[in-house]
Amino acid sequence: MFREKLESAATRNGSLLCVGLDPDPARLPIESVGEFNRAIIEATADLVCAYKPNLAFYEALGEAGYAALRETLAAIPPHIPTIADAKRGDIGNTARAYASAVFDVLGFDAVTVSPYLGGDSLAPFIEREDRGVFVLCRTSNPGAADFQDLEVSSEKGVRPLYELVAERARSWNTRGNVGLVTGATYPEELGRVRELCPEMLLLIPGVGAQAGDLAAAVRAGLDAHGGGILVVAARGVLYASRGEDFARAARDAAESLRDQIQEQREAAPAKGGS
Amino acid sequence: MFREKLESAATRNGSLLCVGLDPDPARLPIESVGEFNRAIIEATADLVCAYKPNLAFYEALGEAGYAALRETLAAIPPHIPTIADAKRGDIGNTARAYASAVFDVLGFDAVTVSPYLGGDSLAPFIEREDRGVFVLCRTSNPGAADFQDLEVSSEKGVRPLYELVAERARSWNTRGNVGLVTGATYPEELGRVRELCPEMLLLIPGVGAQAGDLAAAVRAGLDAHGGGILVVAARGVLYASRGEDFARAARDAAESLRDQIQEQREAAPAKGGS
Repeated sequence: MFREKLESAATRNGSLLCVGLDPDPARLPIESVGEFNRAIIEATADLVCAYKPNLAFYEALGEAGYAALRETLAAIPPHIPTIADAKRGDIGNTARAYASAVFDVLGFDAVTVSPYLGGDSLAPFIEREDRGVFVLCRTSNPGAADFQDLEVSSEKGVRPLYELVAERARSWNTRGNVGLVTGATYPEELGRVRELCPEMLLLIPGVGAQAGDLAAAVRAGLDAHGGGILVVAARGVLYASRGEDFARAARDAAESLRDQIQEQREAAPAKGGS
Repeated sequence: MFREKLESAATRNGSLLCVGLDPDPARLPIESVGEFNRAIIEATADLVCAYKPNLAFYEALGEAGYAALRETLAAIPPHIPTIADAKRGDIGNTARAYASAVFDVLGFDAVTVSPYLGGDSLAPFIEREDRGVFVLCRTSNPGAADFQDLEVSSEKGVRPLYELVAERARSWNTRGNVGLVTGATYPEELGRVRELCPEMLLLIPGVGAQAGDLAAAVRAGLDAHGGGILVVAARGVLYASRGEDFARAARDAAESLRDQIQEQREAAPAKGGS
Protein backbone atom coordinates (compact mmCIF):
# COMPACT_ATOMS: atom_id res chain seq x y z
CA MET A 1 0.00 0.00 0.00
CA PHE A 2 1.35 3.38 -1.02
CA ARG A 3 0.27 5.25 2.09
CA GLU A 4 1.86 2.75 4.48
CA LYS A 5 5.09 2.81 2.50
CA LEU A 6 5.08 6.61 2.54
CA GLU A 7 4.40 6.84 6.25
CA SER A 8 7.08 4.32 7.02
CA ALA A 9 9.68 6.30 5.03
CA ALA A 10 8.50 9.56 6.61
CA THR A 11 8.87 8.15 10.11
CA ARG A 12 12.22 6.52 9.40
CA ASN A 13 13.70 9.76 8.00
CA GLY A 14 11.73 12.16 10.18
CA SER A 15 10.76 13.91 6.99
CA LEU A 16 7.81 15.12 4.95
CA LEU A 17 10.12 16.35 2.19
CA CYS A 18 9.65 14.95 -1.33
CA VAL A 19 12.51 15.71 -3.71
CA GLY A 20 11.47 16.36 -7.30
CA LEU A 21 13.90 14.76 -9.75
CA ASP A 22 13.48 17.16 -12.68
CA PRO A 23 16.77 17.20 -14.55
CA ASP A 24 17.27 20.23 -16.80
CA PRO A 25 20.30 19.60 -19.05
CA ALA A 26 21.03 23.34 -19.19
CA ARG A 27 21.55 23.41 -15.43
CA LEU A 28 23.24 20.07 -14.72
CA PRO A 29 26.74 20.22 -13.25
CA ILE A 30 27.64 16.92 -14.97
CA GLU A 31 26.63 15.53 -18.33
CA SER A 32 24.83 12.31 -17.44
CA VAL A 33 21.27 12.69 -16.16
CA GLY A 34 21.31 9.21 -14.68
CA GLU A 35 24.58 9.82 -12.83
CA PHE A 36 23.37 13.20 -11.61
CA ASN A 37 20.15 11.75 -10.22
CA ARG A 38 22.02 8.85 -8.63
CA ALA A 39 24.32 11.29 -6.83
CA ILE A 40 21.35 13.37 -5.65
CA ILE A 41 19.55 10.26 -4.41
CA GLU A 42 22.61 8.93 -2.58
CA ALA A 43 23.06 12.33 -0.92
CA THR A 44 19.44 12.72 0.18
CA ALA A 45 17.92 9.24 0.67
CA ASP A 46 17.95 9.55 4.48
CA LEU A 47 16.27 12.98 4.36
CA VAL A 48 13.15 12.43 2.24
CA CYS A 49 9.79 10.67 2.42
CA ALA A 50 9.53 10.22 -1.36
CA TYR A 51 11.05 11.04 -4.76
CA LYS A 52 9.04 12.54 -7.59
CA PRO A 53 10.51 12.45 -11.11
CA ASN A 54 8.54 14.69 -13.48
CA LEU A 55 8.24 12.67 -16.69
CA ALA A 56 8.39 15.74 -18.93
CA PHE A 57 12.09 16.22 -18.28
CA TYR A 58 12.86 12.65 -19.33
CA GLU A 59 10.56 12.71 -22.35
CA ALA A 60 12.36 15.85 -23.56
CA LEU A 61 15.54 13.75 -23.84
CA GLY A 62 14.06 11.02 -26.02
CA GLU A 63 15.45 7.48 -25.79
CA ALA A 64 18.31 8.65 -23.56
CA GLY A 65 15.79 10.21 -21.19
CA TYR A 66 13.88 6.96 -20.95
CA ALA A 67 17.07 5.13 -20.06
CA ALA A 68 17.93 7.83 -17.51
CA LEU A 69 14.51 7.45 -15.91
CA ARG A 70 15.01 3.69 -15.60
CA GLU A 71 18.46 4.29 -14.09
CA THR A 72 17.00 6.85 -11.68
CA LEU A 73 14.24 4.53 -10.49
CA ALA A 74 16.76 1.73 -10.00
CA ALA A 75 18.89 4.03 -7.82
CA ILE A 76 16.05 4.85 -5.40
CA PRO A 77 16.19 2.59 -2.31
CA PRO A 78 13.21 0.22 -2.35
CA HIS A 79 11.81 1.53 0.95
CA ILE A 80 11.41 5.07 -0.44
CA PRO A 81 8.19 5.54 -2.45
CA THR A 82 8.28 6.99 -5.96
CA ILE A 83 5.72 9.33 -7.51
CA ALA A 84 5.44 9.73 -11.29
CA ASP A 85 4.62 13.38 -11.85
CA ALA A 86 2.79 12.74 -15.10
CA LYS A 87 -0.49 14.70 -14.83
CA ARG A 88 -2.12 12.16 -17.11
CA GLY A 89 -5.84 12.10 -17.88
CA ASP A 90 -7.64 10.38 -20.75
CA ILE A 91 -10.73 8.28 -21.45
CA GLY A 92 -11.13 4.81 -19.95
CA ASN A 93 -9.22 2.40 -22.22
CA THR A 94 -6.45 4.97 -22.70
CA ALA A 95 -6.25 5.73 -18.99
CA ARG A 96 -5.74 2.02 -18.41
CA ALA A 97 -2.76 2.13 -20.77
CA TYR A 98 -1.30 5.10 -18.89
CA ALA A 99 -1.81 3.35 -15.55
CA SER A 100 -0.02 0.32 -16.90
CA ALA A 101 2.84 2.52 -18.20
CA VAL A 102 3.54 4.21 -14.86
CA PHE A 103 2.69 1.39 -12.44
CA ASP A 104 3.66 -1.78 -14.31
CA VAL A 105 6.24 -0.80 -16.93
CA LEU A 106 8.06 1.80 -14.84
CA GLY A 107 7.05 0.50 -11.41
CA PHE A 108 6.09 3.78 -9.73
CA ASP A 109 4.26 3.67 -6.40
CA ALA A 110 2.07 6.69 -7.21
CA VAL A 111 1.13 9.12 -9.98
CA THR A 112 -0.28 12.60 -10.47
CA VAL A 113 -3.40 12.89 -12.66
CA SER A 114 -5.52 15.67 -14.12
CA PRO A 115 -9.27 15.75 -13.33
CA TYR A 116 -10.71 17.58 -16.38
CA LEU A 117 -12.08 14.40 -18.02
CA GLY A 118 -13.95 13.32 -14.90
CA GLY A 119 -14.20 10.33 -12.62
CA ASP A 120 -14.24 7.56 -15.23
CA SER A 121 -10.91 8.84 -16.60
CA LEU A 122 -9.26 8.43 -13.17
CA ALA A 123 -10.86 5.13 -12.18
CA PRO A 124 -8.23 2.95 -13.90
CA PHE A 125 -5.57 4.58 -11.71
CA ILE A 126 -7.59 4.60 -8.49
CA GLU A 127 -8.62 0.97 -8.89
CA ARG A 128 -4.99 0.03 -8.38
CA GLU A 129 -5.46 0.15 -4.65
CA ASP A 130 -1.82 -0.54 -3.79
CA ARG A 131 -0.79 2.63 -5.66
CA GLY A 132 -1.26 6.31 -4.81
CA VAL A 133 -3.11 8.77 -7.07
CA PHE A 134 -2.72 12.54 -6.60
CA VAL A 135 -5.41 14.56 -8.37
CA LEU A 136 -4.54 18.11 -9.48
CA CYS A 137 -6.65 20.44 -7.35
CA ARG A 138 -5.24 23.97 -6.80
CA THR A 139 -1.92 24.19 -8.59
CA SER A 140 1.07 26.42 -7.83
CA ASN A 141 1.30 28.38 -11.10
CA PRO A 142 -0.05 31.91 -11.75
CA GLY A 143 -2.52 30.63 -14.40
CA ALA A 144 -4.09 28.21 -11.88
CA ALA A 145 -6.81 30.79 -11.29
CA ASP A 146 -7.97 30.71 -14.95
CA PHE A 147 -10.24 27.74 -14.35
CA GLN A 148 -9.59 26.40 -10.85
CA ASP A 149 -10.96 29.54 -9.16
CA LEU A 150 -14.06 29.89 -11.33
CA GLU A 151 -17.20 30.13 -9.22
CA VAL A 152 -19.29 27.02 -9.77
CA SER A 153 -22.89 26.33 -8.77
CA SER A 154 -23.29 23.25 -6.59
CA GLU A 155 -25.80 21.80 -4.18
CA LYS A 156 -23.85 23.55 -1.40
CA GLY A 157 -23.99 26.96 -3.09
CA VAL A 158 -21.48 28.76 -5.27
CA ARG A 159 -17.86 27.72 -4.75
CA PRO A 160 -14.58 27.72 -6.64
CA LEU A 161 -14.03 24.80 -9.01
CA TYR A 162 -11.01 23.49 -7.09
CA GLU A 163 -13.20 22.91 -4.02
CA LEU A 164 -15.53 20.74 -6.07
CA VAL A 165 -12.56 18.84 -7.43
CA ALA A 166 -11.40 18.27 -3.85
CA GLU A 167 -14.81 16.98 -2.81
CA ARG A 168 -15.17 14.70 -5.81
CA ALA A 169 -11.69 13.32 -5.24
CA ARG A 170 -12.65 12.64 -1.65
CA SER A 171 -15.70 10.73 -2.85
CA TRP A 172 -13.41 8.60 -5.05
CA ASN A 173 -11.14 7.84 -2.09
CA THR A 174 -12.94 4.70 -0.97
CA ARG A 175 -9.66 2.74 -0.96
CA GLY A 176 -7.63 5.37 0.91
CA ASN A 177 -5.22 5.84 -2.00
CA VAL A 178 -6.34 9.19 -3.45
CA GLY A 179 -4.56 12.46 -2.59
CA LEU A 180 -4.55 15.98 -3.99
CA VAL A 181 -1.99 18.37 -5.49
CA THR A 182 -2.24 21.78 -3.85
CA GLY A 183 0.42 24.44 -4.43
CA ALA A 184 2.39 26.04 -1.60
CA THR A 185 2.03 29.38 -3.37
CA TYR A 186 -1.61 29.64 -2.29
CA PRO A 187 -1.68 28.69 1.41
CA GLU A 188 -5.22 29.97 1.93
CA GLU A 189 -6.63 27.66 -0.74
CA LEU A 190 -4.43 24.87 0.58
CA GLY A 191 -5.95 25.33 4.03
CA ARG A 192 -9.43 25.22 2.54
CA VAL A 193 -8.63 21.94 0.79
CA ARG A 194 -7.37 20.51 4.09
CA GLU A 195 -10.67 21.51 5.74
CA LEU A 196 -12.65 19.75 3.01
CA CYS A 197 -10.45 16.65 2.97
CA PRO A 198 -9.14 16.17 6.52
CA GLU A 199 -7.85 12.63 5.97
CA MET A 200 -6.30 12.87 2.48
CA LEU A 201 -2.66 13.19 1.49
CA LEU A 202 -1.70 16.57 0.04
CA LEU A 203 1.22 16.82 -2.37
CA ILE A 204 2.52 20.38 -2.09
CA PRO A 205 4.80 21.76 -4.82
CA GLY A 206 5.83 25.39 -5.10
CA VAL A 207 8.30 26.04 -2.29
CA GLY A 208 11.77 27.18 -3.34
CA ALA A 209 12.03 28.21 -6.99
CA GLN A 210 8.33 29.03 -7.10
CA ALA A 211 8.67 31.14 -3.95
CA GLY A 212 5.85 29.70 -1.89
CA ASP A 213 6.10 30.34 1.84
CA LEU A 214 7.18 27.01 3.33
CA ALA A 215 6.03 27.68 6.88
CA ALA A 216 2.60 28.92 5.85
CA ALA A 217 2.09 25.99 3.50
CA VAL A 218 3.07 23.40 6.10
CA ARG A 219 0.83 24.95 8.74
CA ALA A 220 -2.09 25.09 6.31
CA GLY A 221 -1.57 21.55 5.06
CA LEU A 222 -0.85 19.44 8.15
CA ASP A 223 -3.60 17.07 9.16
CA ALA A 224 -4.86 16.52 12.72
CA HIS A 225 -2.02 14.07 13.34
CA GLY A 226 0.70 16.50 12.22
CA GLY A 227 1.25 14.68 8.95
CA GLY A 228 -0.63 13.99 5.72
CA ILE A 229 1.53 16.20 3.49
CA LEU A 230 4.45 15.81 1.09
CA VAL A 231 6.33 19.08 0.58
CA VAL A 232 8.02 19.07 -2.82
CA ALA A 233 11.32 20.75 -3.57
CA ALA A 234 13.10 20.25 -6.89
CA ARG A 235 15.20 23.07 -8.31
CA GLY A 236 16.12 24.41 -4.86
CA VAL A 237 17.72 21.06 -4.01
CA LEU A 238 18.99 19.84 -7.40
CA TYR A 239 20.75 23.07 -8.33
CA ALA A 240 21.82 24.26 -4.89
CA SER A 241 25.32 24.29 -6.35
CA ARG A 242 26.44 23.91 -9.93
CA GLY A 243 29.99 23.09 -8.91
CA GLU A 244 31.63 19.77 -8.07
CA ASP A 245 30.04 19.96 -4.63
CA PHE A 246 26.51 19.72 -6.07
CA ALA A 247 25.58 16.55 -4.18
CA ARG A 248 26.79 17.92 -0.85
CA ALA A 249 24.97 21.21 -1.51
CA ALA A 250 21.81 19.28 -2.42
CA ARG A 251 22.06 17.38 0.86
CA ASP A 252 22.45 20.61 2.82
CA ALA A 253 19.48 22.18 1.05
CA ALA A 254 17.33 19.07 1.61
CA GLU A 255 18.34 18.85 5.27
CA SER A 256 17.49 22.50 5.82
CA LEU A 257 14.07 22.07 4.19
CA ARG A 258 13.36 18.88 6.13
CA ASP A 259 14.24 20.62 9.39
CA GLN A 260 12.15 23.68 8.59
CA ILE A 261 9.16 21.42 7.94
CA GLN A 262 9.80 19.54 11.22
CA GLU A 263 9.93 22.86 13.13
CA GLN A 264 6.52 23.78 11.79
CA ARG A 265 5.16 20.35 12.73
CA GLU A 266 6.44 20.72 16.27
CA ALA A 267 5.06 24.26 16.57
CA ALA A 268 1.67 23.37 15.08
CA PRO A 269 -1.09 24.06 17.62
CA ALA A 270 -3.02 21.04 18.88
CA LYS A 271 -1.26 18.72 16.47
CA GLY A 272 1.31 16.02 17.18
CA GLY A 273 5.08 16.26 16.50
CA SER A 274 7.09 14.01 14.22
CA MET B 1 2.21 25.90 -40.48
CA PHE B 2 0.06 23.08 -39.12
CA ARG B 3 -3.24 24.37 -40.46
CA GLU B 4 -1.96 24.79 -44.01
CA LYS B 5 -0.43 21.32 -43.95
CA LEU B 6 -3.70 19.87 -42.66
CA GLU B 7 -5.83 21.65 -45.25
CA SER B 8 -3.52 20.60 -48.01
CA ALA B 9 -3.76 16.92 -46.98
CA ALA B 10 -7.54 17.23 -46.54
CA THR B 11 -7.95 18.66 -50.03
CA ARG B 12 -5.57 16.16 -51.64
CA ASN B 13 -7.38 13.18 -50.10
CA GLY B 14 -10.88 14.70 -50.08
CA SER B 15 -11.00 13.73 -46.42
CA LEU B 16 -11.62 15.07 -42.94
CA LEU B 17 -10.90 11.66 -41.41
CA CYS B 18 -8.10 11.40 -38.85
CA VAL B 19 -7.06 7.84 -38.04
CA GLY B 20 -6.06 7.24 -34.44
CA LEU B 21 -3.06 4.93 -34.20
CA ASP B 22 -3.79 3.35 -30.81
CA PRO B 23 -2.30 -0.14 -30.87
CA ASP B 24 -3.68 -2.50 -28.25
CA PRO B 25 -1.50 -5.64 -28.11
CA ALA B 26 -4.49 -7.73 -27.05
CA ARG B 27 -6.26 -6.92 -30.31
CA LEU B 28 -3.44 -6.83 -32.85
CA PRO B 29 -3.60 -9.37 -35.68
CA ILE B 30 0.22 -9.47 -35.86
CA GLU B 31 2.87 -9.23 -33.16
CA SER B 32 4.85 -6.14 -34.13
CA VAL B 33 3.21 -2.80 -33.32
CA GLY B 34 5.50 -0.98 -35.73
CA GLU B 35 4.69 -3.37 -38.59
CA PHE B 36 0.98 -3.23 -37.80
CA ASN B 37 0.93 0.57 -37.89
CA ARG B 38 2.99 0.64 -41.07
CA ALA B 39 0.48 -1.64 -42.77
CA ILE B 40 -2.44 0.50 -41.57
CA ILE B 41 -0.71 3.67 -42.78
CA GLU B 42 0.11 2.20 -46.19
CA ALA B 43 -3.51 1.09 -46.55
CA THR B 44 -5.06 4.43 -45.58
CA ALA B 45 -2.61 7.23 -46.44
CA ASP B 46 -4.70 8.40 -49.39
CA LEU B 47 -7.89 8.47 -47.30
CA VAL B 48 -7.00 10.60 -44.28
CA CYS B 49 -6.22 14.22 -43.43
CA ALA B 50 -4.05 13.31 -40.41
CA TYR B 51 -2.84 10.51 -38.14
CA LYS B 52 -3.15 10.69 -34.37
CA PRO B 53 -1.08 8.24 -32.27
CA ASN B 54 -2.21 8.24 -28.64
CA LEU B 55 1.00 8.16 -26.62
CA ALA B 56 -0.53 6.08 -23.81
CA PHE B 57 -0.53 2.94 -25.95
CA TYR B 58 3.17 3.31 -26.73
CA GLU B 59 4.13 4.21 -23.16
CA ALA B 60 2.37 1.06 -21.98
CA LEU B 61 4.90 -0.95 -24.01
CA GLY B 62 8.02 0.62 -22.49
CA GLU B 63 11.20 0.87 -24.59
CA ALA B 64 9.67 -1.27 -27.34
CA GLY B 65 6.72 1.11 -27.48
CA TYR B 66 9.01 4.08 -27.88
CA ALA B 67 10.76 2.37 -30.78
CA ALA B 68 7.39 1.46 -32.31
CA LEU B 69 6.28 5.10 -32.08
CA ARG B 70 9.45 6.23 -33.89
CA GLU B 71 8.85 3.58 -36.54
CA THR B 72 5.23 4.66 -36.90
CA LEU B 73 6.10 8.32 -37.34
CA ALA B 74 8.74 7.42 -39.92
CA ALA B 75 6.13 5.47 -41.88
CA ILE B 76 3.73 8.40 -42.19
CA PRO B 77 4.19 10.23 -45.51
CA PRO B 78 5.66 13.70 -44.85
CA HIS B 79 2.68 15.52 -46.39
CA ILE B 80 0.26 14.01 -43.84
CA PRO B 81 0.20 15.88 -40.51
CA THR B 82 0.68 14.03 -37.24
CA ILE B 83 -1.06 14.79 -33.94
CA ALA B 84 0.36 13.56 -30.62
CA ASP B 85 -2.64 12.66 -28.52
CA ALA B 86 -0.88 13.34 -25.23
CA LYS B 87 -3.31 15.48 -23.19
CA ARG B 88 -0.35 17.08 -21.44
CA GLY B 89 -0.64 20.03 -19.06
CA ASP B 90 1.89 21.22 -16.48
CA ILE B 91 3.42 24.44 -15.15
CA GLY B 92 5.60 26.64 -17.37
CA ASN B 93 9.09 25.15 -17.30
CA THR B 94 7.66 21.62 -17.36
CA ALA B 95 5.26 22.44 -20.18
CA ARG B 96 8.27 23.65 -22.17
CA ALA B 97 9.88 20.24 -21.69
CA TYR B 98 6.70 18.48 -22.87
CA ALA B 99 6.49 20.76 -25.92
CA SER B 100 10.08 19.94 -26.74
CA ALA B 101 9.39 16.20 -26.31
CA VAL B 102 6.46 16.09 -28.75
CA PHE B 103 7.52 18.73 -31.28
CA ASP B 104 11.32 18.49 -31.33
CA VAL B 105 12.24 15.01 -30.13
CA LEU B 106 9.36 13.16 -31.79
CA GLY B 107 8.63 15.72 -34.52
CA PHE B 108 4.83 15.84 -34.26
CA ASP B 109 2.96 18.60 -36.09
CA ALA B 110 0.36 19.04 -33.34
CA VAL B 111 -0.55 17.94 -29.82
CA THR B 112 -3.57 17.63 -27.53
CA VAL B 113 -3.36 19.43 -24.16
CA SER B 114 -5.44 19.65 -20.99
CA PRO B 115 -6.60 23.09 -19.79
CA TYR B 116 -6.97 22.57 -16.03
CA LEU B 117 -3.73 24.40 -15.13
CA GLY B 118 -4.67 27.50 -17.11
CA GLY B 119 -3.25 29.67 -19.86
CA ASP B 120 0.36 29.85 -18.70
CA SER B 121 0.58 26.06 -18.76
CA LEU B 122 -0.41 25.98 -22.45
CA ALA B 123 1.63 28.97 -23.64
CA PRO B 124 4.83 26.96 -24.29
CA PHE B 125 2.87 24.82 -26.76
CA ILE B 126 0.93 27.65 -28.37
CA GLU B 127 4.02 29.81 -28.81
CA ARG B 128 5.26 27.23 -31.30
CA GLU B 129 3.25 28.90 -34.04
CA ASP B 130 4.13 26.35 -36.71
CA ARG B 131 2.54 23.58 -34.60
CA GLY B 132 -1.10 22.88 -33.78
CA VAL B 133 -2.48 22.72 -30.22
CA PHE B 134 -5.84 21.08 -29.47
CA VAL B 135 -7.25 21.98 -26.05
CA LEU B 136 -9.58 19.48 -24.36
CA CYS B 137 -12.99 21.13 -24.23
CA ARG B 138 -15.99 18.75 -24.15
CA THR B 139 -14.71 15.22 -24.23
CA SER B 140 -16.40 12.07 -25.51
CA ASN B 141 -16.45 9.97 -22.30
CA PRO B 142 -19.41 9.53 -19.91
CA GLY B 143 -17.51 11.24 -17.05
CA ALA B 144 -16.98 14.37 -19.13
CA ALA B 145 -19.98 15.91 -17.40
CA ASP B 146 -18.38 15.65 -13.93
CA PHE B 147 -16.55 18.96 -14.35
CA GLN B 148 -16.97 20.14 -17.94
CA ASP B 149 -20.73 20.67 -17.56
CA LEU B 150 -20.57 22.43 -14.19
CA GLU B 151 -22.40 25.75 -14.28
CA VAL B 152 -19.87 28.54 -13.90
CA SER B 153 -20.42 32.23 -13.19
CA SER B 154 -18.92 34.52 -15.84
CA GLU B 155 -19.36 38.08 -17.06
CA LYS B 156 -21.82 36.69 -19.61
CA GLY B 157 -23.93 34.89 -17.01
CA VAL B 158 -23.93 31.30 -15.84
CA ARG B 159 -22.60 28.80 -18.39
CA PRO B 160 -21.07 25.33 -18.46
CA LEU B 161 -17.32 25.18 -17.84
CA TYR B 162 -16.57 23.77 -21.29
CA GLU B 163 -17.95 26.92 -22.90
CA LEU B 164 -15.55 29.05 -20.87
CA VAL B 165 -12.71 26.77 -21.88
CA ALA B 166 -13.74 27.23 -25.52
CA GLU B 167 -13.77 31.01 -25.16
CA ARG B 168 -10.44 31.16 -23.35
CA ALA B 169 -8.89 28.90 -25.96
CA ARG B 170 -10.22 31.23 -28.63
CA SER B 171 -8.59 34.18 -26.87
CA TRP B 172 -5.27 32.28 -26.94
CA ASN B 173 -5.63 31.66 -30.67
CA THR B 174 -3.81 34.80 -31.80
CA ARG B 175 -1.52 32.77 -34.07
CA GLY B 176 -4.29 30.66 -35.63
CA ASN B 177 -2.84 27.40 -34.30
CA VAL B 178 -5.21 26.57 -31.42
CA GLY B 179 -8.07 24.09 -31.83
CA LEU B 180 -10.42 22.21 -29.50
CA VAL B 181 -11.22 18.60 -28.69
CA THR B 182 -15.00 18.05 -28.71
CA GLY B 183 -16.48 14.57 -28.61
CA ALA B 184 -18.83 13.25 -31.28
CA THR B 185 -20.91 11.64 -28.54
CA TYR B 186 -22.35 15.04 -27.55
CA PRO B 187 -23.33 16.73 -30.84
CA GLU B 188 -25.34 19.44 -29.11
CA GLU B 189 -22.34 20.62 -27.07
CA LEU B 190 -20.19 20.26 -30.17
CA GLY B 191 -22.53 22.59 -32.03
CA ARG B 192 -22.38 25.09 -29.19
CA VAL B 193 -18.57 25.06 -29.32
CA ARG B 194 -18.71 25.67 -33.07
CA GLU B 195 -20.99 28.68 -32.47
CA LEU B 196 -18.55 30.11 -29.92
CA CYS B 197 -15.46 29.42 -32.03
CA PRO B 198 -16.52 29.70 -35.67
CA GLU B 199 -12.97 29.78 -37.08
CA MET B 200 -11.21 27.16 -34.94
CA LEU B 201 -10.31 23.57 -35.78
CA LEU B 202 -12.32 20.94 -33.91
CA LEU B 203 -10.80 17.52 -33.29
CA ILE B 204 -13.74 15.14 -32.91
CA PRO B 205 -13.15 11.72 -31.34
CA GLY B 206 -15.92 9.34 -30.35
CA VAL B 207 -17.39 7.93 -33.55
CA GLY B 208 -17.21 4.18 -33.99
CA ALA B 209 -16.25 2.29 -30.82
CA GLN B 210 -17.58 5.12 -28.67
CA ALA B 211 -20.85 5.09 -30.64
CA GLY B 212 -21.17 8.76 -31.44
CA ASP B 213 -23.47 9.60 -34.35
CA LEU B 214 -21.14 10.46 -37.21
CA ALA B 215 -23.64 12.41 -39.28
CA ALA B 216 -24.85 14.52 -36.37
CA ALA B 217 -21.30 15.26 -35.25
CA VAL B 218 -20.16 16.33 -38.72
CA ARG B 219 -23.19 18.55 -39.22
CA ALA B 220 -22.69 20.17 -35.82
CA GLY B 221 -18.97 20.66 -36.28
CA LEU B 222 -18.52 21.90 -39.84
CA ASP B 223 -17.50 25.54 -40.15
CA ALA B 224 -18.99 28.04 -42.59
CA HIS B 225 -16.65 26.79 -45.31
CA GLY B 226 -17.67 23.15 -44.90
CA GLY B 227 -14.43 22.23 -43.14
CA GLY B 228 -12.65 22.98 -39.87
CA ILE B 229 -13.04 19.51 -38.37
CA LEU B 230 -11.00 16.34 -37.97
CA VAL B 231 -13.18 13.30 -37.34
CA VAL B 232 -11.22 10.69 -35.43
CA ALA B 233 -11.65 6.95 -35.83
CA ALA B 234 -9.29 4.48 -34.20
CA ARG B 235 -10.62 1.10 -33.08
CA GLY B 236 -13.26 0.99 -35.85
CA VAL B 237 -10.50 1.20 -38.47
CA LEU B 238 -7.58 -0.57 -36.77
CA TYR B 239 -9.54 -3.64 -35.75
CA ALA B 240 -12.02 -3.82 -38.64
CA SER B 241 -10.67 -7.34 -39.13
CA ARG B 242 -8.41 -9.39 -36.92
CA GLY B 243 -7.51 -11.74 -39.72
CA GLU B 244 -4.78 -11.59 -42.35
CA ASP B 245 -6.91 -9.11 -44.31
CA PHE B 246 -6.68 -6.51 -41.51
CA ALA B 247 -5.06 -3.82 -43.69
CA ARG B 248 -7.61 -4.25 -46.48
CA ALA B 249 -10.44 -4.17 -43.94
CA ALA B 250 -8.95 -1.04 -42.34
CA ARG B 251 -8.87 0.60 -45.76
CA ASP B 252 -12.50 -0.28 -46.40
CA ALA B 253 -13.55 1.04 -42.99
CA ALA B 254 -11.57 4.27 -43.49
CA GLU B 255 -12.95 4.75 -46.99
CA SER B 256 -16.49 4.26 -45.76
CA LEU B 257 -16.00 6.80 -42.95
CA ARG B 258 -14.35 9.29 -45.28
CA ASP B 259 -17.24 9.01 -47.71
CA GLN B 260 -19.87 9.34 -45.00
CA ILE B 261 -18.19 12.53 -43.84
CA GLN B 262 -18.06 13.84 -47.41
CA GLU B 263 -21.77 13.12 -47.85
CA GLN B 264 -22.57 15.21 -44.83
CA ARG B 265 -20.36 18.03 -46.10
CA GLU B 266 -22.15 18.01 -49.44
CA ALA B 267 -25.55 17.94 -47.79
CA ALA B 268 -24.76 20.63 -45.26
CA PRO B 269 -27.11 23.60 -45.72
CA ALA B 270 -25.49 26.86 -46.83
CA LYS B 271 -22.02 25.38 -46.52
CA GLY B 272 -19.62 24.44 -49.33
CA GLY B 273 -18.77 20.91 -50.46
CA SER B 274 -15.34 19.37 -50.46
